[in-house]
Amino acid sequence: MEFISPIDAAFLLGESREHPMHVGSLQLFEAPEDAGPDFAQRTHEMLLEHRDFDPTFRKRPAKLWGTPQLAWSQEDEVDIDYHVRRSALPSPGGIAQLLELASDLHSVLLDRHRPLWEIHLIEGLGDGRFALYSKMHHALIDGVAAQRLVQRTLTSDASSHEALVPWQLPRRQKRTESPGGSTLSGVARNLRSAAAAAPAALRVARAALLQQQLTLPFAAPRTMFNVPIGGARRCAMRSWPLERIRQVKKATGSTVNDVVLTMSAGALRGYLLERNALPDKPLIAMVPVSLRGEDDNGDQSGVKVGAILCNLGTDVADPLERLRVVSESMCRSKEIYRSLSSTQTMALSALMLSPLALTLLPGIVSLTNPPFNIVISNVPGPRETMYWNGARLDATYPMSIPFDGQAVNITLTTNAENLDFGLVGCRRSVPRLERLLDHLEQSLTALEEAAL
Amino acid sequence: MEFISPIDAAFLLGESREHPMHVGSLQLFEAPEDAGPDFAQRTHEMLLEHRDFDPTFRKRPAKLWGTPQLAWSQEDEVDIDYHVRRSALPSPGGIAQLLELASDLHSVLLDRHRPLWEIHLIEGLGDGRFALYSKMHHALIDGVAAQRLVQRTLTSDASSHEALVPWQLPRRQKRTESPGGSTLSGVARNLRSAAAAAPAALRVARAALLQQQLTLPFAAPRTMFNVPIGGARRCAMRSWPLERIRQVKKATGSTVNDVVLTMSAGALRGYLLERNALPDKPLIAMVPVSLRGEDDNGDQSGVKVGAILCNLGTDVADPLERLRVVSESMCRSKEIYRSLSSTQTMALSALMLSPLALTLLPGIVSLTNPPFNIVISNVPGPRETMYWNGARLDATYPMSIPFDGQAVNITLTTNAENLDFGLVGCRRSVPRLERLLDHLEQSLTALEEAAL
Repeated sequence: MEFISPIDAAFLLGESREHPMHVGSLQLFEAPEDAGPDFAQRTHEMLLEHRDFDPTFRKRPAKLWGTPQLAWSQEDEVDIDYHVRRSALPSPGGIAQLLELASDLHSVLLDRHRPLWEIHLIEGLGDGRFALYSKMHHALIDGVAAQRLVQRTLTSDASSHEALVPWQLPRRQKRTESPGGSTLSGVARNLRSAAAAAPAALRVARAALLQQQLTLPFAAPRTMFNVPIGGARRCAMRSWPLERIRQVKKATGSTVNDVVLTMSAGALRGYLLERNALPDKPLIAMVPVSLRGEDDNGDQSGVKVGAILCNLGTDVADPLERLRVVSESMCRSKEIYRSLSSTQTMALSALMLSPLALTLLPGIVSLTNPPFNIVISNVPGPRETMYWNGARLDATYPMSIPFDGQAVNITLTTNAENLDFGLVGCRRSVPRLERLLDHLEQSLTALEEAAL
Repeated sequence: MEFISPIDAAFLLGESREHPMHVGSLQLFEAPEDAGPDFAQRTHEMLLEHRDFDPTFRKRPAKLWGTPQLAWSQEDEVDIDYHVRRSALPSPGGIAQLLELASDLHSVLLDRHRPLWEIHLIEGLGDGRFALYSKMHHALIDGVAAQRLVQRTLTSDASSHEALVPWQLPRRQKRTESPGGSTLSGVARNLRSAAAAAPAALRVARAALLQQQLTLPFAAPRTMFNVPIGGARRCAMRSWPLERIRQVKKATGSTVNDVVLTMSAGALRGYLLERNALPDKPLIAMVPVSLRGEDDNGDQSGVKVGAILCNLGTDVADPLERLRVVSESMCRSKEIYRSLSSTQTMALSALMLSPLALTLLPGIVSLTNPPFNIVISNVPGPRETMYWNGARLDATYPMSIPFDGQAVNITLTTNAENLDFGLVGCRRSVPRLERLLDHLEQSLTALEEAAL
């Protein structure tokens, strides 16, 4: 029996039929050339042979004193057929069918009588590719760590037919290899305990947000995204060449993240305009960012994650002017973090390892007066082409958690030379979510035309 | 706004992640000869064109005074893409893959923010067939009525390409055409109100059960089926030629239902023996039966449904001796109903329109002292070969509801010259449910060998 940290417990307590609290990931693979027609079936059988489960993949909420959310128990007999499943797409097996299936899978709650994870091997894509949809409860792992865990199953060796599985990673790899790594690693656990033990962290977080709000031209407006949500989800995904974003960055002297945020801002503006729902005031995004410099590869105590409030300039039609607004806003907000003491930064970072944690705290997110309109996360991913089971990874789409008052989420990640965008929205409140993809493309094109 | 009857509300209140309260049906079709490769897609598009929803298919629980279970509201904009979906089977697209998908679909709760039904058109069967999985909340419709509703979409005309949909049945068909029909029909609603208004009905039901228990040789033993359950389901389905059962019936002078119960009893005995879990005392089944004679086609006030407790004779190795035990037990239990006044019968029948309703009443079902071990229902079905959209109906497998203390359910129905068995069990408490199918076959063979 292991006690659940208060932050993790919040994800269990905060979960309901309307508010599933799991993070997901959809990976798209090019099957290897020697893959026969039974490739998916053989791959599934191979997956089922891995039955040496990491403790995280055996955890389920224990019933303790009648309250199920206080402790974890370890499941002795993991029913692997339940956790690792096969699915197929109806014809013609296009991306539309894949997204529908992913939306359905992402809408379903994890079974609390079992360890809180599922992996679905998806076949039936018309072009012969296959996909893996993974989902884990946020009480086990946060979105960044989940992506990292999935990455650890990959190899950059194209000739390797190695197929690691997230629940049984080889122990030779040091668990604590990377800062901000994973709830699996001791560091994250320690950081969380620190945050949990210190209500000070919450005060810091709150103060940092409030100070940032003061630097914004307006408070976040209420939008169609800031409403109570239902339980069904829709997701939308697309990849963009990183080079396109890099070109805009170079031409404008900004950062990749600024360009990505501006591209997202333009898409939100386009989507809202189309629905006659664009507020006069600019939308405010909450952007979880690393506060370390790029060369700062320090030890775990150097984890620095902040919640940046960013003015998205959705009231501005001109793309370059919008980019300028976004960059300035990001700079000003980061300044506030620089003024924090290292203890404060660490406590805050512990909290921000789960950006969602913040949103669960009473008073921080409200429907009547949202401090921000949308969470936009850029999660680190591999810089080179990766392989799994001899299959080339074409894309990794993160699937995060919408919640009350935040009906849509944008999370993106790098995959070799692409940026993979994963959008997840409440099926009821955010109609035609896929239109946001078209607007993302239009928004990037507009930036290119203006900058290049 | 429409108030929910107390019995229907019980199915909403009694529902939880561990106890989904929907009934399902899996229909298996032979595609028509002229079906092209896009048959499933075209069929789905055709389904989506039916947007004139019967009020039952617009109902969702309304929030009234903060309590969501007291009233129905009507959904104005039904998101048909959500309710009518396409799914596909992974290779090789056999019955095993179909059952896995059906199990997964049957494990997921219906979304209470929407009308409480879903239909999945399933393609990818290796033999070119296709399937329809339908699910409706028990608060809308009971299992018998759900089967009947699905039947009303079918035609016996092989040349017809008519494809009716349950949510938009033509009004020319009289809703009140058949007794015991449906919660859709006024009669069922009235009967339910009667039952709800009369606690006497519960007293009658209880007394009838207690009296039956007195006629049994022992109280129901505790078995591995009479335990708390989890939320995941496994289902198993197979068809048997009705003629085989008829032959045994003729040779032994019993009834089809007695033979079916004995066949099920033998299967349960075999399954429990295999797991070293057969109790010394015989298992007791609860069997919802019509108490009318076959020629009794009276008006609605003639609906007579009873909950028969049947000694399954699972302690008896000899199949014919077991059949004798079952037949005698059925006769004795039916006797008790004959002694009821017509008012009592009607009140009881109103309650029994939802056999599950009984099990929701406190004190009737208990884990420590189950009055019965399993519900076995034989639901009426079509006597001739039926068609839908030009496709021949090969099988209709009912999928009912396991609940705490009743971890497995057997429901069967007639389909032309077959008996279609649908078994649904808790995935955790009832391991290798599919073994029950083999035991059903062995049990029928043993009856044939002994009787013929």
